Amino acid sequence: MQYSDRILNTPSSFIRNILKVTEANDVISFAGGLPNPISFPLEDMHTSIDRAMKQHGAKLFQYASTQGYLPLRQYIADKYNRRYSLQIDPDDILLTTGSQQALELLAKVLINKGDGIIIEEPGYLGAIQAFTLAEPTFYPVTLEHDGLNLEQLEQALQQPNVKFIYTVPNFQNPTGLTYSLEKRQQVYDLIARHDVILVEDDPYGELRFEGEHLPYIGAGKMENSVLLGSFSKIVTPGMRLGFIITKNKELLQHIETAKQATDLHTNVFSQYVIADYLLNNDLTQHIQKIKDLYKMQSDTMLQAMTTHFPTHVSYTKPEGGMFIWATMNNGRSALDVFEKAMEQKVAFVPGNPFYVNSGDNNINTMRLNYTNSTPEIIEEGIKRLASIL
Amino acid sequence: MQYSDRILNTPSSFIRNILKVTEANDVISFAGGLPNPISFPLEDMHTSIDRAMKQHGAKLFQYASTQGYLPLRQYIADKYNRRYSLQIDPDDILLTTGSQQALELLAKVLINKGDGIIIEEPGYLGAIQAFTLAEPTFYPVTLEHDGLNLEQLEQALQQPNVKFIYTVPNFQNPTGLTYSLEKRQQVYDLIARHDVILVEDDPYGELRFEGEHLPYIGAGKMENSVLLGSFSKIVTPGMRLGFIITKNKELLQHIETAKQATDLHTNVFSQYVIADYLLNNDLTQHIQKIKDLYKMQSDTMLQAMTTHFPTHVSYTKPEGGMFIWATMNNGRSALDVFEKAMEQKVAFVPGNPFYVNSGDNNINTMRLNYTNSTPEIIEEGIKRLASIL
Repeated sequence: MQYSDRILNTPSSFIRNILKVTEANDVISFAGGLPNPISFPLEDMHTSIDRAMKQHGAKLFQYASTQGYLPLRQYIADKYNRRYSLQIDPDDILLTTGSQQALELLAKVLINKGDGIIIEEPGYLGAIQAFTLAEPTFYPVTLEHDGLNLEQLEQALQQPNVKFIYTVPNFQNPTGLTYSLEKRQQVYDLIARHDVILVEDDPYGELRFEGEHLPYIGAGKMENSVLLGSFSKIVTPGMRLGFIITKNKELLQHIETAKQATDLHTNVFSQYVIADYLLNNDLTQHIQKIKDLYKMQSDTMLQAMTTHFPTHVSYTKPEGGMFIWATMNNGRSALDVFEKAMEQKVAFVPGNPFYVNSGDNNINTMRLNYTNSTPEIIEEGIKRLASIL
Repeated sequence: MQYSDRILNTPSSFIRNILKVTEANDVISFAGGLPNPISFPLEDMHTSIDRAMKQHGAKLFQYASTQGYLPLRQYIADKYNRRYSLQIDPDDILLTTGSQQALELLAKVLINKGDGIIIEEPGYLGAIQAFTLAEPTFYPVTLEHDGLNLEQLEQALQQPNVKFIYTVPNFQNPTGLTYSLEKRQQVYDLIARHDVILVEDDPYGELRFEGEHLPYIGAGKMENSVLLGSFSKIVTPGMRLGFIITKNKELLQHIETAKQATDLHTNVFSQYVIADYLLNNDLTQHIQKIKDLYKMQSDTMLQAMTTHFPTHVSYTKPEGGMFIWATMNNGRSALDVFEKAMEQKVAFVPGNPFYVNSGDNNINTMRLNYTNSTPEIIEEGIKRLASIL
């Protein structure tokens, strides 16, 4: 049996492949990317389940529309209009099976084999995987401390058939970096001159525990803006609920057709329950708890790195989100260090899979997740890691 | 903006497009394909939710494995081994976001642009949509009263790069037809000589209310067998839970990679809850209730058709499932009759979208769903329909 080119070229997740070694009981793992389960609002969700079932009965269990449950789309529209001064209505929103699906649908409706996608380097692994299924040409643009490198971006925009630019403007995965206000404006100015879609993927935006909230790059300002959101990091990832916001009606129509052909519609039980939860709880208060937790964990890891890491290692200081990105400036390769680290029973993700051409053995970066370990474990893990750097 | 060829060629669902007219309050609709909501086990599901949350807590809300929850895969393996004498284990199963996703994943990992798919004609519209995203060449083979036309199948198997054959052997959508035992054997004998995958999609198989259960065509007998199942018609469709069973490890590995890139994993809350429901309730008894209900509704519709339809209309007599397929043998086109029927406030699905080349205006068939109307409504709707045939 001959399989399709698209699947033979799709990398399976490096992160999932190393799970077996990194999730052994005696290993301290900074390799994951999971929200801290103590942040899940179990009791309030249970109350919402009971109420939604009582109120809507069989509707929670029946087939439903592809676009998604209207009250939930209304909630999202209201929130984004109020909070980010967008002017959207529920018809500008489509609910997806997690925002991973949004990525896959976007590439599906926009990319013919060989068409261009501009992506941050390093970039989100899940996006690289999802996009690869549509067989694009990737044009990676270096992500600097304040956002995309503008010269590289300008050059990439000259390439043939570039359909969209994929960005994670807040607390990016894997680097934890956030675009500056100035860089947002510069990126917008550059893009606005081209017939290209700007995708802003913002799963972590509400998890800002330091600094000021910044406006989106393109959302609310350009028709070819696509904003992706998710309830995975602020309510629950297990219910797989994300959303696409765009004022481009034609694009959204195509995405709806693609979604219908892909899985008919998003889990409707989860849509009703999460809508009920959002409408009956103080989400701001809930998110504040998550932020306090993650800030404490981030501070702990940064403090431990300052204390224990050799000076040749530099790293980002995230203002939110879930990751720190470290760079070794002494010629060591991350894959080499990963092997040594596993001997010391401490795990991280070597930078390699976050680069579109990840075959490069000279990659000297690593992603460290701080949201899933206690302060004591963070301190001990960083100490172990420092001993082999 | 130029969209992808694959989305420009994907038909949006005719059925969903006519929903606005067919779902008006004063319209009797036989157009849908929904399970009867009175068959949803609401109370038992609520009990399972409470129990699963108590037992597993945050695990119901966290990210999880792409392949799916092991106890649920174990349940499926045990059931199919016991009931259908297969010899599968949980590792031969992957859980999907409804069986619609299984269709899309299969085409994704098997089809390069132009590769062949053999499909029943008429065939399941959702499959036509899902497969179209991979830009295949369709080789339709006429579905006769007892299964695929063998001569056409043999010819289609000679075509270049045919990757798989898609069949719905029990109570097919849209026709309600079931492959005979003899035809199953003949199809198997033909296929076994080719390097081609046989997909048996069986969402309705357990809803047999007449006749004897028949063995699968290829499942349990050939390595290149793929069997699809779903909880949509026997527990709940809203939770979007289907599954793929295959002993072909390489194929399943590719599907898992594709699934991961597509939506990471299936809704884990639903997996735990449905697993709990299945392990703690008598599913056979629950299914018997659905079968009794659907048999009564099917009998009512067939009886009304016998009484009211003119003799030039022939129709299938389903032994299970949800649909009757009618053929007008007097030269009328189904689209023409559909318009007249809407004037009489009765709806069905004209046969057109179930043919790969649905542009043909001479299609004289219609799909009638009986699972969502009371006997009185069925009688009245068939009477109205008869008046314009």
